[in-house]
Amino acid sequence: IKEPICRIRNFLEKAWNLGVAEPKKVIHGLKVGLALSLVSLFYYMRPLYDGFGGNAMWAVMTVVVVFEYTVGATLYKCINRATGTFLAGSLGLGIHWIASHAGDEFEPIILGMSVFILASAATFSRFIPSVKSRFDYGAMIFILTFSLVSISGYRVDKLFEMAHQRLSTIAVGASLCIIITMFFCPTWAGDELHSLIHTNLEKLADSLYGCVVMYFTNNCDDDSSKKMEHYKCVLNSKAAEESLANFVRWEPAHGRFSYRHPWKQYLKVGSALRGCGYCIGTINSSMNSEFEAPDFLKKHLSNACITLSSHASNVLRESATVMATMTKSSNIRSSVGEMQYAVKDLQNAFLSLPNCYLAAKPLAPLDGDSKTATTTKTTVLSMTEVLPLATLVSLLMETAARIED
Amino acid sequence: IKEPICRIRNFLEKAWNLGVAEPKKVIHGLKVGLALSLVSLFYYMRPLYDGFGGNAMWAVMTVVVVFEYTVGATLYKCINRATGTFLAGSLGLGIHWIASHAGDEFEPIILGMSVFILASAATFSRFIPSVKSRFDYGAMIFILTFSLVSISGYRVDKLFEMAHQRLSTIAVGASLCIIITMFFCPTWAGDELHSLIHTNLEKLADSLYGCVVMYFTNNCDDDSSKKMEHYKCVLNSKAAEESLANFVRWEPAHGRFSYRHPWKQYLKVGSALRGCGYCIGTINSSMNSEFEAPDFLKKHLSNACITLSSHASNVLRESATVMATMTKSSNIRSSVGEMQYAVKDLQNAFLSLPNCYLAAKPLAPLDGDSKTATTTKTTVLSMTEVLPLATLVSLLMETAARIED
Repeated sequence: IKEPICRIRNFLEKAWNLGVAEPKKVIHGLKVGLALSLVSLFYYMRPLYDGFGGNAMWAVMTVVVVFEYTVGATLYKCINRATGTFLAGSLGLGIHWIASHAGDEFEPIILGMSVFILASAATFSRFIPSVKSRFDYGAMIFILTFSLVSISGYRVDKLFEMAHQRLSTIAVGASLCIIITMFFCPTWAGDELHSLIHTNLEKLADSLYGCVVMYFTNNCDDDSSKKMEHYKCVLNSKAAEESLANFVRWEPAHGRFSYRHPWKQYLKVGSALRGCGYCIGTINSSMNSEFEAPDFLKKHLSNACITLSSHASNVLRESATVMATMTKSSNIRSSVGEMQYAVKDLQNAFLSLPNCYLAAKPLAPLDGDSKTATTTKTTVLSMTEVLPLATLVSLLMETAARIED
Repeated sequence: IKEPICRIRNFLEKAWNLGVAEPKKVIHGLKVGLALSLVSLFYYMRPLYDGFGGNAMWAVMTVVVVFEYTVGATLYKCINRATGTFLAGSLGLGIHWIASHAGDEFEPIILGMSVFILASAATFSRFIPSVKSRFDYGAMIFILTFSLVSISGYRVDKLFEMAHQRLSTIAVGASLCIIITMFFCPTWAGDELHSLIHTNLEKLADSLYGCVVMYFTNNCDDDSSKKMEHYKCVLNSKAAEESLANFVRWEPAHGRFSYRHPWKQYLKVGSALRGCGYCIGTINSSMNSEFEAPDFLKKHLSNACITLSSHASNVLRESATVMATMTKSSNIRSSVGEMQYAVKDLQNAFLSLPNCYLAAKPLAPLDGDSKTATTTKTTVLSMTEVLPLATLVSLLMETAARIED
């Protein structure tokens, strides 16, 4: 008996933690509840009931289906739903008119064929990338409304009235959603995207510096090893970034973001960050490899490596500030310069390595040592690989900042 | 006037190409059309009309909303829709019964409060990861049905009958969808996932070998440079893999896949492949970097590098065959062994480099050359970094194959 209780308690604990960590999600839940309660008012109040009748159901359905977490997603669904319903409704009425003039025999055939053809075509169109990213929901609503209108048109006589009622109830539901989502603690997709990229920049900076320092100092506490794992979040944020960027298109200007805010730059920065993240992952895995590097090699390179990584993570932090304040900053130029110097230092340290290495060689057994040496070099060199990417990121940040201010 | 015509023609061309490339998607469109036409039969035929009445609408809606590309997705939506409707319907009836016994004053208050509380809670639960991946759609349907039942219950007296009708029409629509999706050219999420991973393995093998050979031979034709870009597809397939793996859970045993097929292994293999893909990306970008390596270095290392990359891509191809045939193969062991020898060869070639490099040094101006040397070394070493990953993949493949046969 204990097991299911345990599970339920676990589940509730998880839910509670999520609610504490992200109160916005709780607020979203409350907003949906509020919108639904308001819609039910339309049903409870007599005069409205007489106006909308049984179709008030559509208002409820619209609220449930359309209300999304971010403003952009809600607007996307509202606009798609309204357009899809309107187009399909008028097309359905037209075909119904044609069918009713074609005689009793042909009427069901014409209606059936048109449903088959249009539904197939619209379903297929949902696979086309440009349609999928912008009008996926609209195409679904189009199929739904068209088949409802053309099928029920065969029975229901007051077709026009029904179409009118459906449209007006959907309009009521949709506008209620838009008002609530925009004016009660709105969650803008733009804000979310902005802060996602911003925290990703900081996480990368943390884990880059943390993992290099830990390797060379062997100073491993819990907090820093947690920070080192941050780069994994960055790798997993692609899907979130893309859907946010999709919804951002539908949002009006708000807060610090003007209508022509360069959202596409965010995606580019995001993918550059993911590239960096994978580099850090490679460094991390080569550091954890089975061969421990000999101490003299570590000592020889540690200073240059630590300086380099601290400069690189400085550049990342600097770009994070640039993003947060959305102003050009001269600091970023100077820290990029410092980073490039650090790269050269590391290269020099590496080039003086052969001598140092050759000198040390006789001291150690050949076979074991050669492997470890290769591993260290690998580590060090993958460090230098981070740099073109870091530079790329900083350049991107600069262009973004330039357009932003 | 020409511009919009051009656009429309472009759009149609794209759609045509997509249809030719993936006829399964066209077939899916036709299947949806077929299902909708069949559902309309329920409406056209008198006896059925008398049975289901105006609620036949729900059958149409179910078909439109539930019919998805893969069998797994359709089953997921059907089961979620049925469960959500049933749970919310019975809960709605219960609360309605309580409210109707509480007196006229309290009835709207109880109903309104229950809608608010349950809708908020269910909306919030959709953010919890374990709910989101399995019951997202069910939670939405729960909110929808519950608010419809409790709101319309205030007016409609024949509530029980309505609930019964809704459930039975949904059952008709859902079973029609399941029959059509499973017996007319089914598209199984399992097959899709299997072939996605399989083609990704082959793409990686192509681009790994192609990019190393091109660097050392400078032999660059269009076909091979296209192949080199294949690794980018691998990087972008994460979201597709995850959604397919989500849907696969709902599918019954089919074809070569038993009920306990280790689908989770596929996700692991997929993420290992993405790791490899990023390594190849790093190699590629360091090869295209501004510093061209001096010829003597290239010559010294080219053989070992080309052998290594051909062995590594052999291992990948071998695992692709293992996946396709789902049998253990002894070939894979031997090619992993060959690859490990090739790694050692490359390491030896690299260790003999310092001497060779020191001998060649006086011939070239110091500053320019040091940079180029570092770049080549970087390239070579990032090659060796691919190998732990490739080994990881092959090991994973073996475990997968072991469970599969």
